[in-house]
Amino acid sequence: MLYQKENLHGGDVYGEEIELDFSVNLNPYGTSPAVLDAIRKAAEKVCHYPDPYCRDLVKKISDREQVPASFVLCGNGAAELIRSYCQAVREIVSEEKKRQDKLHDICRAVVTAPSFIEYELGLFHEGIECIRYYLKKEKAFELDEEYLTFLRNGRPDAVFLCSPNNPDGQLIPEERMEQILCLSEEIGFRVFVDECFLELSDSGVSAKGYLQEHPHLFLLKAFTKNYGMAGVRLGYCLCAEEKLLSRMSGTVQPWNVSLIAQEAGIAALSDEDFLKAAKELIPREREKLSRELTEAGLRVFPSQANYLLFQGPGGLDRELKAQKILIRNCDNFPGLGPGWYRICVKLPEENRKLTEAIGQILKKTM
Amino acid sequence: MLYQKENLHGGDVYGEEIELDFSVNLNPYGTSPAVLDAIRKAAEKVCHYPDPYCRDLVKKISDREQVPASFVLCGNGAAELIRSYCQAVREIVSEEKKRQDKLHDICRAVVTAPSFIEYELGLFHEGIECIRYYLKKEKAFELDEEYLTFLRNGRPDAVFLCSPNNPDGQLIPEERMEQILCLSEEIGFRVFVDECFLELSDSGVSAKGYLQEHPHLFLLKAFTKNYGMAGVRLGYCLCAEEKLLSRMSGTVQPWNVSLIAQEAGIAALSDEDFLKAAKELIPREREKLSRELTEAGLRVFPSQANYLLFQGPGGLDRELKAQKILIRNCDNFPGLGPGWYRICVKLPEENRKLTEAIGQILKKTM
Repeated sequence: MLYQKENLHGGDVYGEEIELDFSVNLNPYGTSPAVLDAIRKAAEKVCHYPDPYCRDLVKKISDREQVPASFVLCGNGAAELIRSYCQAVREIVSEEKKRQDKLHDICRAVVTAPSFIEYELGLFHEGIECIRYYLKKEKAFELDEEYLTFLRNGRPDAVFLCSPNNPDGQLIPEERMEQILCLSEEIGFRVFVDECFLELSDSGVSAKGYLQEHPHLFLLKAFTKNYGMAGVRLGYCLCAEEKLLSRMSGTVQPWNVSLIAQEAGIAALSDEDFLKAAKELIPREREKLSRELTEAGLRVFPSQANYLLFQGPGGLDRELKAQKILIRNCDNFPGLGPGWYRICVKLPEENRKLTEAIGQILKKTM
Repeated sequence: MLYQKENLHGGDVYGEEIELDFSVNLNPYGTSPAVLDAIRKAAEKVCHYPDPYCRDLVKKISDREQVPASFVLCGNGAAELIRSYCQAVREIVSEEKKRQDKLHDICRAVVTAPSFIEYELGLFHEGIECIRYYLKKEKAFELDEEYLTFLRNGRPDAVFLCSPNNPDGQLIPEERMEQILCLSEEIGFRVFVDECFLELSDSGVSAKGYLQEHPHLFLLKAFTKNYGMAGVRLGYCLCAEEKLLSRMSGTVQPWNVSLIAQEAGIAALSDEDFLKAAKELIPREREKLSRELTEAGLRVFPSQANYLLFQGPGGLDRELKAQKILIRNCDNFPGLGPGWYRICVKLPEENRKLTEAIGQILKKTM
């Protein structure tokens, strides 16, 4: 039973000996010192159950995000919130359809491809029909106007977006977001936007300003990437629709967010300098990485996030792994395939090691 | 949205100022020092995602429990495993019924009452019909022979048991367990046994010896109580049915068990002395508590666990709370009601404070 779930993601450094992990998109500075300190202090309290309502953490998030506390729900990582969102939406949508005496109560959602695979898995698990809108490589995976036509024709119950998108790092421009929200009011679909990477991106504006007016808008946020807390498990979401959040919290057990995660989250939100330092470093290092990999002969796509998508020779990840460097092989991303890779932006010295290793591998094979 | 889930459990020390918490059944010695140490050390590693397969922890559990690693699945607390068990069972049972062309695919389960409310909540959430078998106060809540007749007549798809039972602390005798397993083979129902409190109980024998022969037997285990890790969130289960465990792990997100929980669990299992000390203290202190509360005029029920159920005047919990002492008001346990309380067995000095406080309150009111 050890291997019952197929791991579709990066960051599995446990099977082999890995020295440099470029396969997960974390803050290049690792874990916030304030978080480390909070975890050590929280150890003393772990004989207590966690606060099932995450009262202090919710208050802190509400202050930081400048949204009412009633808009906030925390989870055991953003991944848990994706699952409970899908479940709650499926329940609400089928109840609505039954009430309206629709012919069937099947729920349908549109996801973009490529994007984070957990949305599709969550939908699949709930028996929600999942329709893919393929982003175009020729347009560098931007969310184009045709997407709006696709929604208008398809009339889904929900759409899943990611800004900046994973794996390519494209932000959704504000104008496009407004068009989508406008259409969502007209057709009546829900809009899920994953903003987990937004805070480490260039000039990305959160859609949270639209929450109050658009109760069908749902924003996903994580501590994982920003504060280097992947091992702690903490995410949250913002939404004005009380019924939805209430359903979501009913789908999970009462103590889903650990006491340590709550304390670590509170500490993280007090450590703004940590985030600022990363935001200064990332664009510079990303452009350098991008330039060097392009010069080495790879096709690198534009990104506004702390990661880069590129095309290269098949097996590049295996060759790098032999040198204890892990990159994300993107061949299981719908819409991509063999020869696609994603790397995160790390510290200058680490990035240099990666470009050198890739340079040597490419010289050998070309 | 702060209060969207109604908290039905003890241990919520966050709303008020509490000095002594008797409402949760934890190891009287608090948290294992080995666990504290492991949490502090794990802080350094939290920028990594957790191992989605809990490889090292599963191996350690398998060694300790002397069962194959393929029988082990870990979860974000035992509470998460209850939810995913209910979901997986509902899926498997309805598929089986559809294959057999049964008239309906409704799944039915028998729970005992009183017992831990999370089983009913998990069943309710999956739309599984939940039938209560009421344990008799006159028989001190023992699982009597009539229970077998009840199952024979009711022919459920699953039964939920807890040994020692929460809130009364009665162990299921081996002979009864064998009768239940024998009947489960005959009728074809699944047997869920919560053994989360077993290791802090007197001479309780785990049903794990039956796992190999009875793939429909499922055992729930937690670190919470034994090692004072409620705030960490870690539980596991043991079962020989690969299909079930595989389903269960599919119902949750890939990184449900935090890196800290995995490291803390490994450390806990190496700290056997910690458990031994508690097992020596508990029976002595429990009998003392029981005697003194009985002398004070309360009706205390026999228990083999680290907690005691008793009947007393209504409002006793409120009076104690005014003295910053929290006990578990059991009025929301099906089969109990107002005037029922549960306390855990703590350290001698703490127990003395409780009995003194109760003594004074009773003197005042009687």
